[in-house]
Amino acid sequence: MAQISLSRRLRRTPFSDGVEAAGVKGYTVYNRMLLPTVFESVEADYRHLKSHVQVWDVSCERQVELRGPDAARLMQMLTPRDLRGMLPGQCFYVPIVDETGGMLNDPVAVKLSEDRWWISIADSDLLLWVKGIANGYRLDVLVDEPDVSPLAIQGPKADDLLARVFGDRVRDVRFFKFDKFEFEGRELAIARSGYSKQGGFEIYVEGSDIGMPLWNALFAAGEDLHVRAGCPNLIERIEGGLLSYGNDMTDDNTPHECGLGKFCNTHTAIGCIGRDALLRVAKEGPVQQIRPISIDGDAVPPCDRPWSVVAGGKRIGQITSTAWSPDFNTNVSIGMVKLSHWEPGTRIEVETPDGMRGATVRDKFWI
Amino acid sequence: MAQISLSRRLRRTPFSDGVEAAGVKGYTVYNRMLLPTVFESVEADYRHLKSHVQVWDVSCERQVELRGPDAARLMQMLTPRDLRGMLPGQCFYVPIVDETGGMLNDPVAVKLSEDRWWISIADSDLLLWVKGIANGYRLDVLVDEPDVSPLAIQGPKADDLLARVFGDRVRDVRFFKFDKFEFEGRELAIARSGYSKQGGFEIYVEGSDIGMPLWNALFAAGEDLHVRAGCPNLIERIEGGLLSYGNDMTDDNTPHECGLGKFCNTHTAIGCIGRDALLRVAKEGPVQQIRPISIDGDAVPPCDRPWSVVAGGKRIGQITSTAWSPDFNTNVSIGMVKLSHWEPGTRIEVETPDGMRGATVRDKFWI
Repeated sequence: MAQISLSRRLRRTPFSDGVEAAGVKGYTVYNRMLLPTVFESVEADYRHLKSHVQVWDVSCERQVELRGPDAARLMQMLTPRDLRGMLPGQCFYVPIVDETGGMLNDPVAVKLSEDRWWISIADSDLLLWVKGIANGYRLDVLVDEPDVSPLAIQGPKADDLLARVFGDRVRDVRFFKFDKFEFEGRELAIARSGYSKQGGFEIYVEGSDIGMPLWNALFAAGEDLHVRAGCPNLIERIEGGLLSYGNDMTDDNTPHECGLGKFCNTHTAIGCIGRDALLRVAKEGPVQQIRPISIDGDAVPPCDRPWSVVAGGKRIGQITSTAWSPDFNTNVSIGMVKLSHWEPGTRIEVETPDGMRGATVRDKFWI
Repeated sequence: MAQISLSRRLRRTPFSDGVEAAGVKGYTVYNRMLLPTVFESVEADYRHLKSHVQVWDVSCERQVELRGPDAARLMQMLTPRDLRGMLPGQCFYVPIVDETGGMLNDPVAVKLSEDRWWISIADSDLLLWVKGIANGYRLDVLVDEPDVSPLAIQGPKADDLLARVFGDRVRDVRFFKFDKFEFEGRELAIARSGYSKQGGFEIYVEGSDIGMPLWNALFAAGEDLHVRAGCPNLIERIEGGLLSYGNDMTDDNTPHECGLGKFCNTHTAIGCIGRDALLRVAKEGPVQQIRPISIDGDAVPPCDRPWSVVAGGKRIGQITSTAWSPDFNTNVSIGMVKLSHWEPGTRIEVETPDGMRGATVRDKFWI
């Protein structure tokens, strides 16, 4: 295994001091920022996440802020999801597409008010696309990256931990809604959301200076809850069917190929830049789509590139994420499979670095 | 030191198999792609680079291709450098700025023909900005990322090595010009350029399938030249004053702050999106600027975040890149310093993780 070479270009976060003190062992880079990947071990982190509560430095979910009279119009230009019914205080998962309908990002849009939005982005410089569109269409809107760094609190004891720091009212925040809470005199948006299926919150920490004070307050409050530093867990997120932009899909893919058709209202999303390109696929459906796949046998090696999926000697798809699941005793995997082979129960073969393995297309993720 | 966690999202390159076989020890991530940072050691790699010849996988210099009737117009919209005199076969270093004059990237533009350009980018998804602008202004141009991966041949024996593989004509390629050469029936653009001051070339490898065949041909031809796998070297690039986007400057900085005013023709670059914003700074000059700085004493620790530069108890700048130079026996550094303290010879202080160090602003880099 190779080491990561640190430099200013791989941006630190307001919580990096805490992450290092907690003994981070591995990093990835996400939006040109450090994202921890492992503390004790991926499997030990997984077990702990499912049992207790973890604090995740997900500052790399940078925000693109839209402010001004044209903010809502611009937001709708970016996505085929119809945003007309969205209220301030809501979070929407929004596929972002270019003029060809290709996915540029799969962020969560946070509506702060009619004329102020945050887009909490996956791994691509979406800021540049949004700024280019705003400039080219001469929209009356300011677009920038504010000093906001999300901190996720995930795991079955997340409610208990946050209630100790922010009060019991935090328990009332509903899924994909947010409310404002005070910390050291600052108002912070806290949403019930996060990149795991274990429940929890994301705190939009506005102002780097309160990063470590908040980090420390959470650890001080949660000692008996076994709170630990954690991070998005490869095994748990595959079990839960949480897609990863750049891994499971790229700008080659439409939202429909990614199984995100339910987040598209292509007919009514008037103004969306990719609308025309998506109308046909929205009506007729895609020819390939993301599927949960179970790979036979014992643990496969780490998947650092697409593995071909074949059937009858022909390439009919690829695996893009996989991990051995201790809870489900199989290699839980995410792949893109052609229409001819995507029915649940279909037997396929996967070209792993260790050789061919049998595999089965499943009807649902491991949830 | 933490390890890097590999996944498809951190893209491999056509040369990754060769890089691994050569024993890469460290990586960074650049344009969401793997970029090697060290093979033997940063200091041993440095010594070898200055003595022999190295093959560098710089695939992460992704290309943004502009094709079509509006390609030249779009290219000029992106940069304050006047491109009217640029001929096919030339490479221009071009600051790319947004509407505020902030640097979005500092790539090399490659003019293939009047209606076809490559932009060989530094670390930001410039593709998204260019696509957004092309879309918003409804330009008649195709913008995408082609299957082109630069391979750099750097070091004093670079001419000898390339002549063995491509013929003696390659010796005639002049600095920042390119010509076409054949390899296995494919025409490849080869430019005299690269991210070192030791001389050499960049081969624009078009078609991933010929990546490893070319890699292997270079190593087979250069055994007696002591050819080795290498990578941009931290020490050598600081000595040579080669800036790193994301390290030494960000979108907060104008080209003039980066000392790139000589690449700006702000008055005549009609159509450049950032022109209006830059007119004043072009005339009056910036209030802070990048400077070579020598930090006193023995080797400082690695610089993974900006270090404050102070004088008279006030913050007057920051160090963003530094390394111990065996050849110059000092900590060669790049920093941004305020006008009041940027004169050569000015004594300043640097807040390193090991404590305050004296330092001197220099008149030029170590070349």
